[in-house]
Amino acid sequence: MTLPQALQYLGTAVFAVSAVLAAGRKGLDLLGVLVIALITATGGGTVRDLLLDRTPFWFTDTGYVVTILLSGCATVVLLRWRHPSERVLQIADALGLALFSISGARIAEAAGLPGLIVVVLATITGTFGGVLRDVMCNDIPLLLRPGTIYGTAVIAGATLYVLLQSVGVPRDTAAYAGMVVIAGLRLAAIARNISLPALTIRDTDAD
Amino acid sequence: MTLPQALQYLGTAVFAVSAVLAAGRKGLDLLGVLVIALITATGGGTVRDLLLDRTPFWFTDTGYVVTILLSGCATVVLLRWRHPSERVLQIADALGLALFSISGARIAEAAGLPGLIVVVLATITGTFGGVLRDVMCNDIPLLLRPGTIYGTAVIAGATLYVLLQSVGVPRDTAAYAGMVVIAGLRLAAIARNISLPALTIRDTDAD
Amino acid sequence: MTLPQALQYLGTAVFAVSAVLAAGRKGLDLLGVLVIALITATGGGTVRDLLLDRTPFWFTDTGYVVTILLSGCATVVLLRWRHPSERVLQIADALGLALFSISGARIAEAAGLPGLIVVVLATITGTFGGVLRDVMCNDIPLLLRPGTIYGTAVIAGATLYVLLQSVGVPRDTAAYAGMVVIAGLRLAAIARNISLPALTIRDTDAD
Repeated sequence: MTLPQALQYLGTAVFAVSAVLAAGRKGLDLLGVLVIALITATGGGTVRDLLLDRTPFWFTDTGYVVTILLSGCATVVLLRWRHPSERVLQIADALGLALFSISGARIAEAAGLPGLIVVVLATITGTFGGVLRDVMCNDIPLLLRPGTIYGTAVIAGATLYVLLQSVGVPRDTAAYAGMVVIAGLRLAAIARNISLPALTIRDTDAD
Repeated sequence: MTLPQALQYLGTAVFAVSAVLAAGRKGLDLLGVLVIALITATGGGTVRDLLLDRTPFWFTDTGYVVTILLSGCATVVLLRWRHPSERVLQIADALGLALFSISGARIAEAAGLPGLIVVVLATITGTFGGVLRDVMCNDIPLLLRPGTIYGTAVIAGATLYVLLQSVGVPRDTAAYAGMVVIAGLRLAAIARNISLPALTIRDTDAD
Repeated sequence: MTLPQALQYLGTAVFAVSAVLAAGRKGLDLLGVLVIALITATGGGTVRDLLLDRTPFWFTDTGYVVTILLSGCATVVLLRWRHPSERVLQIADALGLALFSISGARIAEAAGLPGLIVVVLATITGTFGGVLRDVMCNDIPLLLRPGTIYGTAVIAGATLYVLLQSVGVPRDTAAYAGMVVIAGLRLAAIARNISLPALTIRDTDAD
């Protein structure tokens, strides 16, 4: 197993764990929790692969589904003893987000798409698993909620990744820089509770 | 028309009828009800076809859309006289679930996918129509709700289908066995009110 | 830029503006509002392209994403001064709906699909962006809500487009007729508050 592949599995496991915690709060049974874990951890990459007309990444390498099921079940068992610290989870989730988003950007780039679309696909790869999780759990997606620098972090990091390459920085260096920005912004937002202002729109129509 | 094809149409009609009943409770108008019927009865197979890069099954054979529209309208008309027994519907829905799931497994198998992914695609084929219906109607999907052996039945039956073939059982025999398990488990769960326990997760973080 | 292309951009901008207004009412931040604008204005065409196994229309022409981001940001800024009249928006939205739906019908027709499926894909193209917007914002989709001749207008116009061609009317003439019917029905419904009756289904089962 190569390092990038190991990181992909790690990101997948982290997303599965965070999904189990989110789903557990909804009072789902074991199957519902595992379904949510599968959708959260594969959703973003699957939507990206559908848009790019690629075979979904978890079709040929069953390691992804196995990783999700094992880490999901392990989380359910461990929760009987103790609840993981929210801080640990948020750090892991920020790393998973950084990794998934930039890997999405690389795949979109390899398909020859323009920089703007690369950023959009990076955002889809990093965040749409969580969007699908929240939609299925009947919540407003975290991506949309004010008070979370989430999508913003992905867009900033993916834009940096594209821009650095356009001025001649090697692809791998640009990728590390992009990931550091995503994880860094996300963690800073959590640590300092930074948020974008919500729009207040006067609702003048009688709906 | 061959028997498998007739069964496919029957499964489609049953899913359309159950969708009309679910949608009717939401106070939708006729068009909304028919849209929900179309999405419920085609959704699972369509998501499977998109993932497998196949042409959606209802594109070339308009019989599916016609079946859904006719059975949906018929249900709306009949509802003016009497509400069908919930029991009859649940039996029909269990048969449709068994049929759709195993047909999804066969298509995934024909694409050369590993057994684990075959089971995942069987589950998607059988249940995602209902997931889309519930998401559009703003409900937590039935697939996720505790107190329903729904996805579990599909997974058990599809796993049996894969395992039987791996020990040399002919494909058709394995398919019938898988369908019997899905419909049987689902009906037993309804009859005896069996359910998986919900997870109770201590919510220690201040969200 | 050709006239049809200019109209496509106009329709895209209109859908983005209406999405910003809808999203703004949910108290989202700037990023959330732009995400909703992107999903609303590209969603219907993207689902159509996925079903038809085409490259998503906004991949190669970045003008669509740029149009959405610019008109979305402009709307956010303008909202600080005044709220656009609901009437102006509804007229623009009806034009966008007519344009998108018939362009979806033409693309489905070019793929050689039967007339019934052409109508279904026209409806998906015109309305699914709004469906995705409403699902993400946790609302029952406008398409499904009683009291709105929305999907009905699309189905009527797309059916006319198909029927006129089948009796020998040239494609462009049929397209204009279809668009006039869609926009006309939608505007008449708004002006006169016409609606289809909601189904009232006796709920006899103890859920």
